[in-house]
Amino acid sequence: MIETKGYAAQSVDTDLAPWAFERREVGPHDVQFDILFCGVCHSDLHQIKNDWFPGIFPMVPGHEIVGRVVKVGDHVKNFKVGDLAGTGCMVDSCQVCENCKKDLEQYCLEGNTGTYNSLERDGKTPTYGGYSNTIVVREEFVLHVSDKLNLAAVAPLLCAGITTYSPLRHWKVGKGHKLAVLGLGGLGHMAVKFGVAFGAEVTVLSTSPKKEEDAKKLGAQGFVVTTDEAQVKAAMGTFDFILDTVSAEHDFKMYLSLLKTDGTLICVGVPSKPAEIPAFSLLGGRKSVAGSGIGGIAETQEMLDFCAAHNIVSEIEMIDMKDIHTAYERMEKGDVRYRFVIDMATL
Amino acid sequence: MIETKGYAAQSVDTDLAPWAFERREVGPHDVQFDILFCGVCHSDLHQIKNDWFPGIFPMVPGHEIVGRVVKVGDHVKNFKVGDLAGTGCMVDSCQVCENCKKDLEQYCLEGNTGTYNSLERDGKTPTYGGYSNTIVVREEFVLHVSDKLNLAAVAPLLCAGITTYSPLRHWKVGKGHKLAVLGLGGLGHMAVKFGVAFGAEVTVLSTSPKKEEDAKKLGAQGFVVTTDEAQVKAAMGTFDFILDTVSAEHDFKMYLSLLKTDGTLICVGVPSKPAEIPAFSLLGGRKSVAGSGIGGIAETQEMLDFCAAHNIVSEIEMIDMKDIHTAYERMEKGDVRYRFVIDMATL
Repeated sequence: MIETKGYAAQSVDTDLAPWAFERREVGPHDVQFDILFCGVCHSDLHQIKNDWFPGIFPMVPGHEIVGRVVKVGDHVKNFKVGDLAGTGCMVDSCQVCENCKKDLEQYCLEGNTGTYNSLERDGKTPTYGGYSNTIVVREEFVLHVSDKLNLAAVAPLLCAGITTYSPLRHWKVGKGHKLAVLGLGGLGHMAVKFGVAFGAEVTVLSTSPKKEEDAKKLGAQGFVVTTDEAQVKAAMGTFDFILDTVSAEHDFKMYLSLLKTDGTLICVGVPSKPAEIPAFSLLGGRKSVAGSGIGGIAETQEMLDFCAAHNIVSEIEMIDMKDIHTAYERMEKGDVRYRFVIDMATL
Repeated sequence: MIETKGYAAQSVDTDLAPWAFERREVGPHDVQFDILFCGVCHSDLHQIKNDWFPGIFPMVPGHEIVGRVVKVGDHVKNFKVGDLAGTGCMVDSCQVCENCKKDLEQYCLEGNTGTYNSLERDGKTPTYGGYSNTIVVREEFVLHVSDKLNLAAVAPLLCAGITTYSPLRHWKVGKGHKLAVLGLGGLGHMAVKFGVAFGAEVTVLSTSPKKEEDAKKLGAQGFVVTTDEAQVKAAMGTFDFILDTVSAEHDFKMYLSLLKTDGTLICVGVPSKPAEIPAFSLLGGRKSVAGSGIGGIAETQEMLDFCAAHNIVSEIEMIDMKDIHTAYERMEKGDVRYRFVIDMATL
């Protein structure tokens, strides 16, 4: 087994702290890479707090992972020692179901294997995430990372990036579309970058007027302060799509009123409570509320390649491992521009 | 003015009773037709009870109206005295907005004019519906009705028919699709007929096991009793579409679990309370909840022509006008196969 150092929560009530654990030896189809940077996702916080479902403890969070390959299994052909590599929210899936065969491993009919807070396909071995110094992943779930981009700023692409890229591609958002991005955080700022790159006219919807300058810098043409009734009224019926990145409770009825006829609100955030959606908000304009979860492996590689070609990375604030709790506190207040990334050298 | 006899609720607290009122004279672009049959829609009951919004009283319900033309305006070219005619849920719209120009008058950006419980474009003259002996409607909102079909059974096509036809066409439901129809009532039984006619494999989802025989007679291949856990479990992840015709509260989380990846639940019913939709129910399979309201005038004509070509009508129970309250009581209990139609000769 491979001795591994990481930061773990020992139970739902405890803070993250250093923890030593073991990872499996590199099998014939595995890639081991040393973790250089790991992004801090809001879902890390949700999961160590059991916000969504009872977690598996000890829990080592982190699913925006980049690093350098240190060992490959005998049968691995696509990676070699020294390559840059990344892993996102999944490390495995059944690989044989209808969805896996369609490159939709995220919707694996048997459930994908999460990078942490999940069980391996054996149904009993817990997975541990990227707040650690090294990781072993089967090759199909390891991504190639370009050396042209700032590696630390690539890390968040593995979750925040693909989670926004995938729905924009699936719903073919682009030229001629008015796209609203709800929430300018880790996901939202990537949605703005991708929306702009795909040719859409992007507007940011935010409760924070002070984010307008940033939104414009990121390429947004419009900005609506959603606590300002006059601005909301002026925006009614104007968007083809709203990409909703908010995982706090919010007023779906109001946001749906901003869509044009046949418009779609796409949820990628996960509020703890169900969305409350009045029927008339949908029927009144043949509108839809949809959800999208991360993206498949092939699409994640496509997204990383697209980012390399278009020089797109996340806006990040680098932190030391020991400062993770301060980062969580700031993240909860929305005080991060726009993704914390842990420099794993500080572990 | 045209002296008209009808049945009206004088206020939200009173029963329907005979009422004499006036309709406008036939203008140059108007068609007057004597009403032979009027369907009884669940929304009639919602509206006289102020379930959705404060109503305009006195209220003459009824928006599934068929009859015979008795007078046409000087400029009317498409109708002549003696023609069969029908009118559904709308009698006017702005006719100039983006949606009206796209034959989506039901989503008129200035609001369409409802056949009753609404105001004419002047913003002050109430509209009165089909529980009456005659009606005057501008020609663009009058439909041609085939004389090949049972006229009484055509009436419900004007609301129950188009409300289910339109979304099935919009989402291109047909061959190769598994369609579930939720609720086998006035709308549901039409959804089954159209789904079958379009080539989909149709399953009825119902709380009433006794409706299975009827569902099969209507052409459904499957039937799931939604209070039977084993049947629900077996149906999980199996449908491409659910057409949800239920206007009582229901468990969206459970129904969404019956959809395949990328499946869509289309709401055409209007429960009084908002739908509660957990984010994971959508994100877990890139699912959508959509809404659809009636259909445009051109599409309504297309639907009527499709019905004439394919010999499709509603299953009806004919009632006398005076028995409307008994009909409402039975409708509230779901005890109608499958639409009450008032024989207006009994007024």
